[in-house]
Amino acid sequence: MDVKTVKKILSEIQKGNISVEDGLRELKHLPYEDMSFARVDHHRHIRQGIPEVIFAAGKTDEQVISIAKAMYKRSGRFLITRATQEIRKALRIKEAVFHPAAGVISVGEVRKKKGHVLVLTAGTSDMPVAEEAAVTASFLGSRVNTLYDVGVAGLHRLMGNKASLYEARVIVVAAGMEGALPSVVGGISDKPIIAVPTSVGYGTSLGGLTALFAMLNSCVPGIAVMNIDNGFGAGCLAHKINTLH
Amino acid sequence: MDVKTVKKILSEIQKGNISVEDGLRELKHLPYEDMSFARVDHHRHIRQGIPEVIFAAGKTDEQVISIAKAMYKRSGRFLITRATQEIRKALRIKEAVFHPAAGVISVGEVRKKKGHVLVLTAGTSDMPVAEEAAVTASFLGSRVNTLYDVGVAGLHRLMGNKASLYEARVIVVAAGMEGALPSVVGGISDKPIIAVPTSVGYGTSLGGLTALFAMLNSCVPGIAVMNIDNGFGAGCLAHKINTLH
Amino acid sequence: MDVKTVKKILSEIQKGNISVEDGLRELKHLPYEDMSFARVDHHRHIRQGIPEVIFAAGKTDEQVISIAKAMYKRSGRFLITRATQEIRKALRIKEAVFHPAAGVISVGEVRKKKGHVLVLTAGTSDMPVAEEAAVTASFLGSRVNTLYDVGVAGLHRLMGNKASLYEARVIVVAAGMEGALPSVVGGISDKPIIAVPTSVGYGTSLGGLTALFAMLNSCVPGIAVMNIDNGFGAGCLAHKINTLH
Amino acid sequence: MDVKTVKKILSEIQKGNISVEDGLRELKHLPYEDMSFARVDHHRHIRQGIPEVIFAAGKTDEQVISIAKAMYKRSGRFLITRATQEIRKALRIKEAVFHPAAGVISVGEVRKKKGHVLVLTAGTSDMPVAEEAAVTASFLGSRVNTLYDVGVAGLHRLMGNKASLYEARVIVVAAGMEGALPSVVGGISDKPIIAVPTSVGYGTSLGGLTALFAMLNSCVPGIAVMNIDNGFGAGCLAHKINTLH
Amino acid sequence: MDVKTVKKILSEIQKGNISVEDGLRELKHLPYEDMSFARVDHHRHIRQGIPEVIFAAGKTDEQVISIAKAMYKRSGRFLITRATQEIRKALRIKEAVFHPAAGVISVGEVRKKKGHVLVLTAGTSDMPVAEEAAVTASFLGSRVNTLYDVGVAGLHRLMGNKASLYEARVIVVAAGMEGALPSVVGGISDKPIIAVPTSVGYGTSLGGLTALFAMLNSCVPGIAVMNIDNGFGAGCLAHKINTLH
Amino acid sequence: MDVKTVKKILSEIQKGNISVEDGLRELKHLPYEDMSFARVDHHRHIRQGIPEVIFAAGKTDEQVISIAKAMYKRSGRFLITRATQEIRKALRIKEAVFHPAAGVISVGEVRKKKGHVLVLTAGTSDMPVAEEAAVTASFLGSRVNTLYDVGVAGLHRLMGNKASLYEARVIVVAAGMEGALPSVVGGISDKPIIAVPTSVGYGTSLGGLTALFAMLNSCVPGIAVMNIDNGFGAGCLAHKINTLH
Amino acid sequence: MDVKTVKKILSEIQKGNISVEDGLRELKHLPYEDMSFARVDHHRHIRQGIPEVIFAAGKTDEQVISIAKAMYKRSGRFLITRATQEIRKALRIKEAVFHPAAGVISVGEVRKKKGHVLVLTAGTSDMPVAEEAAVTASFLGSRVNTLYDVGVAGLHRLMGNKASLYEARVIVVAAGMEGALPSVVGGISDKPIIAVPTSVGYGTSLGGLTALFAMLNSCVPGIAVMNIDNGFGAGCLAHKINTLH
Amino acid sequence: MDVKTVKKILSEIQKGNISVEDGLRELKHLPYEDMSFARVDHHRHIRQGIPEVIFAAGKTDEQVISIAKAMYKRSGRFLITRATQEIRKALRIKEAVFHPAAGVISVGEVRKKKGHVLVLTAGTSDMPVAEEAAVTASFLGSRVNTLYDVGVAGLHRLMGNKASLYEARVIVVAAGMEGALPSVVGGISDKPIIAVPTSVGYGTSLGGLTALFAMLNSCVPGIAVMNIDNGFGAGCLAHKINTLH
Repeated sequence: MDVKTVKKILSEIQKGNISVEDGLRELKHLPYEDMSFARVDHHRHIRQGIPEVIFAAGKTDEQVISIAKAMYKRSGRFLITRATQEIRKALRIKEAVFHPAAGVISVGEVRKKKGHVLVLTAGTSDMPVAEEAAVTASFLGSRVNTLYDVGVAGLHRLMGNKASLYEARVIVVAAGMEGALPSVVGGISDKPIIAVPTSVGYGTSLGGLTALFAMLNSCVPGIAVMNIDNGFGAGCLAHKINTLH
Repeated sequence: MDVKTVKKILSEIQKGNISVEDGLRELKHLPYEDMSFARVDHHRHIRQGIPEVIFAAGKTDEQVISIAKAMYKRSGRFLITRATQEIRKALRIKEAVFHPAAGVISVGEVRKKKGHVLVLTAGTSDMPVAEEAAVTASFLGSRVNTLYDVGVAGLHRLMGNKASLYEARVIVVAAGMEGALPSVVGGISDKPIIAVPTSVGYGTSLGGLTALFAMLNSCVPGIAVMNIDNGFGAGCLAHKINTLH
Repeated sequence: MDVKTVKKILSEIQKGNISVEDGLRELKHLPYEDMSFARVDHHRHIRQGIPEVIFAAGKTDEQVISIAKAMYKRSGRFLITRATQEIRKALRIKEAVFHPAAGVISVGEVRKKKGHVLVLTAGTSDMPVAEEAAVTASFLGSRVNTLYDVGVAGLHRLMGNKASLYEARVIVVAAGMEGALPSVVGGISDKPIIAVPTSVGYGTSLGGLTALFAMLNSCVPGIAVMNIDNGFGAGCLAHKINTLH
Repeated sequence: MDVKTVKKILSEIQKGNISVEDGLRELKHLPYEDMSFARVDHHRHIRQGIPEVIFAAGKTDEQVISIAKAMYKRSGRFLITRATQEIRKALRIKEAVFHPAAGVISVGEVRKKKGHVLVLTAGTSDMPVAEEAAVTASFLGSRVNTLYDVGVAGLHRLMGNKASLYEARVIVVAAGMEGALPSVVGGISDKPIIAVPTSVGYGTSLGGLTALFAMLNSCVPGIAVMNIDNGFGAGCLAHKINTLH
Repeated sequence: MDVKTVKKILSEIQKGNISVEDGLRELKHLPYEDMSFARVDHHRHIRQGIPEVIFAAGKTDEQVISIAKAMYKRSGRFLITRATQEIRKALRIKEAVFHPAAGVISVGEVRKKKGHVLVLTAGTSDMPVAEEAAVTASFLGSRVNTLYDVGVAGLHRLMGNKASLYEARVIVVAAGMEGALPSVVGGISDKPIIAVPTSVGYGTSLGGLTALFAMLNSCVPGIAVMNIDNGFGAGCLAHKINTLH
Repeated sequence: MDVKTVKKILSEIQKGNISVEDGLRELKHLPYEDMSFARVDHHRHIRQGIPEVIFAAGKTDEQVISIAKAMYKRSGRFLITRATQEIRKALRIKEAVFHPAAGVISVGEVRKKKGHVLVLTAGTSDMPVAEEAAVTASFLGSRVNTLYDVGVAGLHRLMGNKASLYEARVIVVAAGMEGALPSVVGGISDKPIIAVPTSVGYGTSLGGLTALFAMLNSCVPGIAVMNIDNGFGAGCLAHKINTLH
Repeated sequence: MDVKTVKKILSEIQKGNISVEDGLRELKHLPYEDMSFARVDHHRHIRQGIPEVIFAAGKTDEQVISIAKAMYKRSGRFLITRATQEIRKALRIKEAVFHPAAGVISVGEVRKKKGHVLVLTAGTSDMPVAEEAAVTASFLGSRVNTLYDVGVAGLHRLMGNKASLYEARVIVVAAGMEGALPSVVGGISDKPIIAVPTSVGYGTSLGGLTALFAMLNSCVPGIAVMNIDNGFGAGCLAHKINTLH
Repeated sequence: MDVKTVKKILSEIQKGNISVEDGLRELKHLPYEDMSFARVDHHRHIRQGIPEVIFAAGKTDEQVISIAKAMYKRSGRFLITRATQEIRKALRIKEAVFHPAAGVISVGEVRKKKGHVLVLTAGTSDMPVAEEAAVTASFLGSRVNTLYDVGVAGLHRLMGNKASLYEARVIVVAAGMEGALPSVVGGISDKPIIAVPTSVGYGTSLGGLTALFAMLNSCVPGIAVMNIDNGFGAGCLAHKINTLH
């Protein structure tokens, strides 16, 4: 509801071009489409900088597909996370790309990439979350590099890749278990760090809560923490920071 | 341990200017100072972009002061958080400034401010945390505005200040209780948002855990979340993002 | 055990129409029927204003059906929640209606609706819980409207439907994740609000606990909170309040 | 932001009585007052049906008093909860009443009471929370009765007061420990029941969480649950329901 | 509400000795006394086998004393737990006995003891809870022996007292920390065992939750578990079992 | 390791009938049988009053059967809990009885029953746990009655069966959800009460933790609490108390 | 990165045998191999004393096998935990041994065993975890004995095996439920004890948290505690201690 | 209860030197002393390798002192942890030493130190716990070095002290907040590592639970974890391992 539009509406009323009732209706009218079970919000990109995303888990394939089609018709641009190859096939949208390691379907990826986001993982099992972050940031228009399995039990693996750390503008770190990698990375780099706890582990890893709490308590000040397994959120924030001008 | 310095040391060895033993010692030597109970790390600013900070809670006033003095002698620049007027007085450092609303002592604040950080609170009681964030970011060199008591129960208070939201490069939101304000702000602004849960509330606010979890589960993607009451961390991250170039 | 009945029994004893022993037995006799595994309570409606309901989850289909049949024979009026189409078919009761979106079977719905209950959801995934509430309140005799997917990340969607909010006597709000919608609705409307946390989300949504705690900590005073996913309870309370005279 | 006012502003613009800029400003202008640390919201009563309340815990006496004075000047009507006799004295407002059992200061209580709210407690120790609810509902204009120490270990005490239960329009039940009283009351009465868990108990009472969870899991459908010790919220909701017409 | 009394009332109505109204009032009348903040329940002993007890924590000394005096007047017999020497003095009841190790005041202890209850502790710090149990059971009329500091780290201390274990009819075991003693005792004795977790410990003892959960998970079947630090409850149950005939 | 046996061994040594080495071996020798994966403890009945029981969940059917056979050969008497009809069939022990409602296989049930144990449930879904308790107590030799679905939402159902409560020597109460039934029963009866929380419920029932904590916090003193769903333990304790002489 | 190697490299630079650039590269070069999804760390054994292990749970069989093959080619020595017979077969490595009770595949077990590790379990169900510990320690070169099902409910079973306890250098104790066995063992033996909580149990065993917390709170000082079900970790630590010289 | 002593007693019986009754008494007699509130266990050192320790927190000074005096008289050797200077003074034992940084009083420290234990901390605030460990291990006879404030945010501080790590036989690591230091140390050293989580931190550090869980989930296998703040336990285990021969 930007000020210019409102001002313009008021001016039209003043000029007598539109009636008070029409003006009122205009002011109330906002650009979303009612689909009974989901109000597709086509102008969200303008407001939040991030296109609409469909979180497929907890929705039927049919719901996912009908929301996706409405988005496709209007903006031709969206993401589906926690998606499957089955949804990709049922979509019948030619330019839809399925990223299997990330479980993401993307439509309308930005071609020209900017800046530099680095995505790290502590172990092999943290890869799906990291890939969700990488695919998201790349889709939005960020240049993305990845460096996996560089956890704290073998610091030399991280140290041997310091150059990568220094080149990035923003660093995303996905780690499960004790979630210590963001602290170590934060001790080396002065760039904004986004930590994503993963649900990797067993017993007292508590489905990722231990990694989450460890990251929130990092002795390195100012680490941005995401929800458990929330690679998508990390990708969004990394892109927002990476492209801030 | 930057590559240039190491290269230089190796060259000196090669040239015979320094012995192998001396070179070895040099490589091991890192610029921190041993004070028996705290290794003051004067080069941290170079590595992490943030000067050393002393978290006064859980340290005796004597410990705080002796660490502070060591820092003062070397770099003349540091922060003490969760500090008191008593520590300020005992410090006997002329340029030390005590910020009572934030509970922060700052020495060596950057004069020339850059960019624009906006700090919001949901309620009056969230102010100390917000002030800690504001003082920190300002100390590091960010231009900071504040807007307090604009919580979701009275959305018109926030809506009446939309202009402030659009002007900021980064927004810090401190909120306790149900922690809903970051989601609402994130629905309006496309700037990076840093959410700081506060321990304001009672009963099931669980000392801030409810606000924390609410923020981690925001339906707005990519909100950066901090530990409970961690205004200092929020200030650091806000400054890092605000001054990223 | 209403006073009139007791008084009547005592009068009959006084008049000598019934013996002390018979009177004693009458006083003890309460109108429920023993089915060995479930005491069907036909007079519950009189005491609590809500007909008996069968929570199908955790009971075998056979148990559900035999309880349902006993109820049908007596009062011809009951609900089965967390039900399936399979139970509906096995029931062999003609007027039984299965509401698939709600997972509810209803028999003997009140035809004449009164007042006005509005049921909102934050997202598409909260719909099953909202539908359980809507079907329940409607079954009991309340007029019910629904408005779905109006979460806080896009406040304009809610604001564009303010009229609906003002028309309702009671508002039910179902939301998962950060559970912020009831606070926002409560900031706009002065009607009683019933908040139902849903188990929608992942990681730190903790199966709905985060939404629950957020709602209990709302900065809007006096929001009525239900158990996680308890659409049935919300429907009952909404009806009770809506029809209070 | 009611429709009539907006319509009127638009009409004035149309008629040329006010300029577009002034109209814009009017639309943005909302009736709250900036006090730097707390935006006093004088129109909240119109929007939510509840006057502003000051939660004194977690604020300095000075902050409480200066907010209170701003409210007093404008509307002459507000509540301070978790208050003390000291605050009452420092307020220097003649008509301010301190309710010691409730820890509430009230200014501008509604004289003419309507309907009937009944407030119950399980034990003696639950009284402060119950009194907070009773004082709040009465302040807002509800007729309030109380019945204390009628917990489930001695059901005859409750049963001996059934008449009180039948007379009330809304029942507030405050209980700590196992929190069973609302279920028992709900089995007897068909009126809306508001359950307030209290922090009374020790060990596994977990500061009221056990009572809270017990109430949320009541086998009586549709009990409205509040945050732990939240007597104020219970009083607000009870009044809203009691006076719904 | 025993059957005989009701029968007698009905007979009186039948005989015309009392009117229907009076009979109705009689039936409703139950023997408790209204003190506005606490309904003293003098017939509780008949119903539950345990005289009224006052849990002093969370009540003012004045409340404790006025409840105590009402009890004294009627039955001359009650307990005050979590009590202090101050309350004892203020009571001004000659036969009141203060048990300092237990923090209990008793009035009207049963002189003639029956059966045999054994109370054990794992460590010295568990003594206050054990003493509360011992004083309670003894007050009610059980013969009580104690054996303290016989924890599992030194099994020989327990083994050297096996005779005591075999002589008891019921065994109360108070233990904090890992709460293992009841399992060991249960492996030796075939008598009913009542386990009382204590809040002794630090860190992951979680205020007694660890001991509680350990006791609930004992590999010895059928151990009766109490709330944390609930020596009073243990004493009541021990006495009930000890004197069951 | 009873004193008589040891004394006898020492006497034999004294008399020279057995050597020191043999005596030593005798003292160490305890009557259990090594099966490599499970030490079957045939004398447990003597020590604890309860025959060996096999908890089938978490063991393979093969393990269950081979342990069962070893027990059968020696004592001919044991229970298998959380068992299935499949195990019953594979056992090939003629007198083995499978109790389907309880999920228990019993071999060697005591024919002559003593005393009187009453087992109650709050709802229909609590029956499997209650049946496990009933079958266990009956197997051990207690006379057992059951009364199901008498929860607090319809107190008249319980009140109509007061006679059953007064006849029992021990009462087992199984309840899920808010777990309030034991408190109500404890307010009526003066017999030892054993409360078994069940995992019946959803959301904040937390798999039975809410019922467990409610029972531990009962305002009725001295209720014996079991682990969640531990009907077997309740049956053992009920029998121990019921047959204490 | 041991000092000798670095010294040698510096000497070579000094002597002019290698260039500064080559020296720099050597210093940075660390012996791991990049496989894109997992950096196999062949020198880990040198640094940590434990060969690389693959935790198969949470990895696809394909990933497990390709990591395993890389390890096999280089060092011919590794473990796969939480493995299956299927993985063993697909590996096609002749000397790979599958230990079914432990769920471990080992390649390159040390033939010559040293010292003495004793592995105990409380019950039969704790065996898989104990076997994982036993197989691990044995694989690394420790002599291992096992003693299963010697839980605290039948202490004589443990006492009858005291000799085994005295012979061991290190004792591993795996226990679920109340986790009391390590305390009892620690009261008898003066050797280092490693406690492994297992997820055996139900209800309040909380998936092993209760056993874990009980072990951390042992009244025996200095018990080493592992994560829930972490037999592998226990085996590693037992071997490290057992072979410390 | 060692075999030799028993054998000797049996021999004496055989020889007729002592009677069966006396032998029986001897077998039962174990060397502890009954002080009514604490059974002082003078032979514990023989059984567990650790002298008796008094945990002063939760005991009155009087209790601490009387237990201490009993110990002093017999063995002249013990520790008091969580002690104060006040207790030291009241003890009136000349050779008692108070260690203020550790809060420990020691009597009878072993003069000749063996082996080498290294104690590390992540930060300054972890020092009291580390000192408790260091004082304990030293008291028992271990040579102890300390290295404080070498946390992961500044890895160079740790790396600059690698030599210390390589010289130690056992390493104790005390860390609060995210508890990451043990993992990093474990990635460098192959010695047994004992991790002690401290309660240092705020908000989601959860009083040390976050550090504890992080340590239990370390990606370095076989780290021994202690209870929160349990420096004493760490010192005991470190000494046991250090002096294992």
